[in-house]
Amino acid sequence: MKRITLLGSTGSIGTQTLDVVRSHPDLYRIHALACARNTDLLFRQIREFAPEVVSLLSEEAAEKTRTEFPDLTVFSGTEGLETLAGDAAADLVLNSVVGMAGMMPTYRALCAGIPVALANKETLVAGGQLIMKTAEEKGVPILPVDSEHSAVFQSLQGSDRKRVRRILLTASGGAFRGKNRSELEQVTAAQALRNPNWDMGAKVTVDSSTLMNKGFEVAEARWLFNMEPDRIDVVVHPESIIHSMVEYEDRAVIAQLGVPDMKVPINYALGYPDRVPLPITDSLDLVELGKLTFEDPDTDTFRCLSLAYDALKAGGTYCTALNAADEILVAAFLKDEIRYLDIPDMLARVMDRHHSRDASDPESIFAADEEAREMARQMIADQ
Amino acid sequence: MKRITLLGSTGSIGTQTLDVVRSHPDLYRIHALACARNTDLLFRQIREFAPEVVSLLSEEAAEKTRTEFPDLTVFSGTEGLETLAGDAAADLVLNSVVGMAGMMPTYRALCAGIPVALANKETLVAGGQLIMKTAEEKGVPILPVDSEHSAVFQSLQGSDRKRVRRILLTASGGAFRGKNRSELEQVTAAQALRNPNWDMGAKVTVDSSTLMNKGFEVAEARWLFNMEPDRIDVVVHPESIIHSMVEYEDRAVIAQLGVPDMKVPINYALGYPDRVPLPITDSLDLVELGKLTFEDPDTDTFRCLSLAYDALKAGGTYCTALNAADEILVAAFLKDEIRYLDIPDMLARVMDRHHSRDASDPESIFAADEEAREMARQMIADQ
Repeated sequence: MKRITLLGSTGSIGTQTLDVVRSHPDLYRIHALACARNTDLLFRQIREFAPEVVSLLSEEAAEKTRTEFPDLTVFSGTEGLETLAGDAAADLVLNSVVGMAGMMPTYRALCAGIPVALANKETLVAGGQLIMKTAEEKGVPILPVDSEHSAVFQSLQGSDRKRVRRILLTASGGAFRGKNRSELEQVTAAQALRNPNWDMGAKVTVDSSTLMNKGFEVAEARWLFNMEPDRIDVVVHPESIIHSMVEYEDRAVIAQLGVPDMKVPINYALGYPDRVPLPITDSLDLVELGKLTFEDPDTDTFRCLSLAYDALKAGGTYCTALNAADEILVAAFLKDEIRYLDIPDMLARVMDRHHSRDASDPESIFAADEEAREMARQMIADQ
Repeated sequence: MKRITLLGSTGSIGTQTLDVVRSHPDLYRIHALACARNTDLLFRQIREFAPEVVSLLSEEAAEKTRTEFPDLTVFSGTEGLETLAGDAAADLVLNSVVGMAGMMPTYRALCAGIPVALANKETLVAGGQLIMKTAEEKGVPILPVDSEHSAVFQSLQGSDRKRVRRILLTASGGAFRGKNRSELEQVTAAQALRNPNWDMGAKVTVDSSTLMNKGFEVAEARWLFNMEPDRIDVVVHPESIIHSMVEYEDRAVIAQLGVPDMKVPINYALGYPDRVPLPITDSLDLVELGKLTFEDPDTDTFRCLSLAYDALKAGGTYCTALNAADEILVAAFLKDEIRYLDIPDMLARVMDRHHSRDASDPESIFAADEEAREMARQMIADQ
């Protein structure tokens, strides 16, 4: 029986994780749940999964929870989330917190020796160097939950990692695949929020349309699999059926395919190394699909992908800054404060001006993060 | 240093095996070579690879070899081939003998405890039950060299075989994909000898066009991977880039892709479990390909595939008989003695009339084989 701490239980990954847990009561038990403030859903989850402890970001929501469940241990705030993440009574922490708030919980879990199933992108994009060093020192595995990284991880099983030639991350291409820069000038938030294959939050969907999301995934792959950026290629594959690939030195390419369903990588991370049956998802039907297509990413139009490679090659806190500035800029775009193409252009300017630090401790990472946010806010104000 | 016995050294798989061996003189050494009668090529191979023993099927060719290389041990005939296969001084036997003559060398190698890299189809199509029982009893691995089975084997690494849901064998569809039966009535041997993706011998190319070859591969997969026939699906994939796939119980599909090049599966079988670098083959470029397509096999037109499933489900020596009759019928078609559609129709009649035996010893297998050949010859004569 694997005891699971689930961070971000009321989000999309969180609820799908509980779908997987629900289908295997013999294998998994929920030890702890954490969310921001959705008490309606959290209360239902508490009643169904009977965790021993929960944590809410909002003080008010935490107080409401204490009133409703007087016998339950209820933490609150950032410190509560981090305490929960480092609670060694769990066998696995699944971290699906959204945003930079997800980095420290990963760090705390690793420090406590608890394996982490990682769905929080910022952990590795902003703090990859620190996090991987910590995981290695503690000898604790990080299991990817993102579909692309799970596909790479699955494609690495049973082969020697020293024989990897390159990683091929697939990309849907986002909502504006095939458009050029002039066609993107008038893009609205509503247009950017349409993604053909995956149902994601607003920030990630916009990042997906700019290819910033794919850039962040390159950064995650760089750290997760200890692979230089020039050995990570991105292939646009609009059908999102091949979730990613690994090419080996013998020129064999191993790939993981399937219907786009996050429950598959969640299930793999929970059950690893076993492939626990998952009858609640569909079987792949390639004949029904008919074809799979591939093209190169258009990095002239979608500059964000190139910016991520540049930031990775520059090292230090460049990726931290890219991630931080992007969060501010996308939020501003969604509020109609900047135009769509301002996102890559302003990101490029933040990169130009960023003073990189050594990214090996949380303080430096948060300092770089805050500085880049402030720089982006200033750019928005000054335009 | 792995000492390799190569059976069928002058054929297509044989020469490509030597290409792989040549590129890794630090890893492999040729212990023995066997071929039928191509002394021109064999002599060059002897001079380059300096085997300790060779065997030729033809007595005359063997005599010529003894004269040319007086210090070399030279065997001859079927018995020579089998003795060579069972020579325990080798660490691996790569068996690329063509036809039913390849079964006993596999058997002898396994009995001597030598791992077999298997490129001979008939070994498992005709003798699967006997061969797998022997391999299991002796605890000796059989490593597939066929591109489809190598792809399945690679896709099985690092996952528990008990979690396999189904095997998806890909098929190019052969030269007549998309045609219906009436369009196939007038097919000539020359037309049947064109295969879009793979360069193979005449018999296999015709079998590929009738889908009999894919049927035999289903039979091989059934035995190699101990999988019931109804859990082995065939998907037509004309580009031959995805070499085959495995779907697991968690609905994840693992696939092996690559340019169509037999050196990749040969290299994998020789180096297994390592992925020895193979710079002599091309890297896969999915963007250049643009798309991969998939369709169901048309088993109404290409009956041979259904016949293979029927034979496998019936068990006993049905597959042995199917293989034997097919060899006779394809040879007759290539000599213009029967029409193209006579191949499946006569095969179906042989299946109807076959008296199945228990296929657990060589004698029963050869008796069924000879009986089916005779039946096919009689049909050709009687038409």
